[in-house]
Amino acid sequence: MSELRVGVIGGGQLARMMTPPAINLGITLKVLAEANGSSAGLATTMVGDYTQLSVVEEFAKTVDVITFDHEHVPLAVLQALEAAGVSVQPPSKALAYAQNKLDMRLQLGALGLPMPDWAEIHDADSLDAFIEAHGGVAILKTPIGGYDGKGVRVVSSAADAADWLSAEGLARVGGRLLAEEKVDFVRELAQLSARTPSGDFRAWPLVQTTQRNGVCAEVLAPAPEASEETLETAAAIARGVADGLGVTGVLAVEMFETSDGRLLINELAMRPHNSGHFSIEGSVTSQFEQHLRAVLDLPLGSTQATDAHAVMVNLLGVDDVNDFLPHYAAAMEAHPEAKIHTYGKGARSGRKMGHVTVISGNSEWALAAARATAKILVGE
Amino acid sequence: MSELRVGVIGGGQLARMMTPPAINLGITLKVLAEANGSSAGLATTMVGDYTQLSVVEEFAKTVDVITFDHEHVPLAVLQALEAAGVSVQPPSKALAYAQNKLDMRLQLGALGLPMPDWAEIHDADSLDAFIEAHGGVAILKTPIGGYDGKGVRVVSSAADAADWLSAEGLARVGGRLLAEEKVDFVRELAQLSARTPSGDFRAWPLVQTTQRNGVCAEVLAPAPEASEETLETAAAIARGVADGLGVTGVLAVEMFETSDGRLLINELAMRPHNSGHFSIEGSVTSQFEQHLRAVLDLPLGSTQATDAHAVMVNLLGVDDVNDFLPHYAAAMEAHPEAKIHTYGKGARSGRKMGHVTVISGNSEWALAAARATAKILVGE
Repeated sequence: MSELRVGVIGGGQLARMMTPPAINLGITLKVLAEANGSSAGLATTMVGDYTQLSVVEEFAKTVDVITFDHEHVPLAVLQALEAAGVSVQPPSKALAYAQNKLDMRLQLGALGLPMPDWAEIHDADSLDAFIEAHGGVAILKTPIGGYDGKGVRVVSSAADAADWLSAEGLARVGGRLLAEEKVDFVRELAQLSARTPSGDFRAWPLVQTTQRNGVCAEVLAPAPEASEETLETAAAIARGVADGLGVTGVLAVEMFETSDGRLLINELAMRPHNSGHFSIEGSVTSQFEQHLRAVLDLPLGSTQATDAHAVMVNLLGVDDVNDFLPHYAAAMEAHPEAKIHTYGKGARSGRKMGHVTVISGNSEWALAAARATAKILVGE
Repeated sequence: MSELRVGVIGGGQLARMMTPPAINLGITLKVLAEANGSSAGLATTMVGDYTQLSVVEEFAKTVDVITFDHEHVPLAVLQALEAAGVSVQPPSKALAYAQNKLDMRLQLGALGLPMPDWAEIHDADSLDAFIEAHGGVAILKTPIGGYDGKGVRVVSSAADAADWLSAEGLARVGGRLLAEEKVDFVRELAQLSARTPSGDFRAWPLVQTTQRNGVCAEVLAPAPEASEETLETAAAIARGVADGLGVTGVLAVEMFETSDGRLLINELAMRPHNSGHFSIEGSVTSQFEQHLRAVLDLPLGSTQATDAHAVMVNLLGVDDVNDFLPHYAAAMEAHPEAKIHTYGKGARSGRKMGHVTVISGNSEWALAAARATAKILVGE
């Protein structure tokens, strides 16, 4: 029997959600998880430390291509795999930009792509100068290691970041910080797309995202009242990033929309992304199926919407106990239309533990239904 | 962490296709497979002989409910589980009718449900009398052990079934045969539905099925040009069967539509069924998710269609070699809209090895696309 074998490094919910399309397509999915009992436990074939080359090398021998649940695998490990002829998708040269936000800003600038004003910060003086030039406030980011609001701080003076600017603080993040202008945005958008090593490219409809405490809370697909020009610009930006950075697999480009209608690139994710979970039910091809196809260099599937609207609401942990399952009967009884997803993760306050999607011809109805289902599941 | 644990006896493609919705819903799926390397291998937690009570008892201890990939578990095994307090869904009293087509006919008759003329056959004389009374032809079935055209024969005289009517032949099938009139049908239809132990019931749209050599080849959902009366009658028949036989989980009722518009019950399946594979993409809730919800006695999901039309075409094995994967690139390139499913089964001529579904607002386009994709995959 012939096989198509995809190896995923990382056992989180993104690897977990690659499992259903792998089963459907008859693709052999193997996961290298950090620990036993991970979210992607069903597809886990190996448990080990992904920062150790020997561990990842052993895993790579069992699959046709290596891809990722997260962007934290050391570049040196990936470069060694590539040197040994392993297909790594996205490749290390693309992931380098996902792992370092300063390098990413530099490269996006070289490509002429739109983004907030930014500067490389080495000390208090350069930060204060940037703040002064940008209305007395800046977004300060650690170039490496941040996610879901971590490694990001709003500052109005270098004194607000004394710990990060100390010799010790700077050393922890590679000696540099990234300052960005605080964009006066009207909303946040995300453009999901996928690209194959052969260059096949497809984009999903632009979506609107709502963050709470730096974590994605809701996604509306497509983004309400987006003009034709906005949709085209967003797709062109995604294509520019994917081609310009050499991204393969799924790419999420998070953007700000300004009051004068400009789109500015905020963050990039070179993997399936929370802003694309709606696509499991809301698109002919989900981001998880598309990612598998893309990293195997198979032709991409249709990204056509399955209905006029899809709404996704995240299920965040409320405490250390509630894992939603005890509320299933009530939620399903009240909302037979809701698609409930939980990730098999232990309960913890604020943790991404699941999501609810509703597709409908009526966006208000879908939003109300998804929110109401989520409320029941979290026990409100 | 709380758990909802479903145990499936049988490791075929139906158990395999229960895995994706189990992952999505965070339900723990465990499969008792006949052998290693089964189609449902990813969810297999035990390999053993399901005809042995001790094996099934041990498996049952690891789950909250026992259900099935097939209908062949001996009733005595299931009755022993039930006596020990295990939740078996569908229960043995319902499965008894699925395991014996004569008992099924008797019970459907008692319920006043419409079906072809039939008779219990013990010898050549009773068969010849039935044939003579029904235009010189009859469908002869073994009451137990038949599926996918096996255990079914068209006969025009008892001499055509001399082997089945011999003392030895009769002994193999419980001493009785079932004769049914050869219905002059205009087409075959299937009504899929689900029922919970609490009595919640939902039906999907009626579908049209096309058989080739006794095996399902294509399914059109909904059934083209079915009148409102036909749709209502079909749903009422399914409800009558589910309630009357005490079926829980998914029930497929295969029916003949006669030239004068009557619906006659042909076969029953008390599990997800080939005629319902379209629902994976074609319905808000697939038959596999619904089956999990039903056997756990959770409220059922919406069976609303996701698009106006869904077409499913089976992928049957062409030889002992082709498993379709080498044709993926060509099929995906030509048909980005097609949803390809393969079951990880070894190649064998005529074997059900996968299927293709296309959903669309245009039924002719969907049918052409699904057929064309299937052709590429089988290497035609």
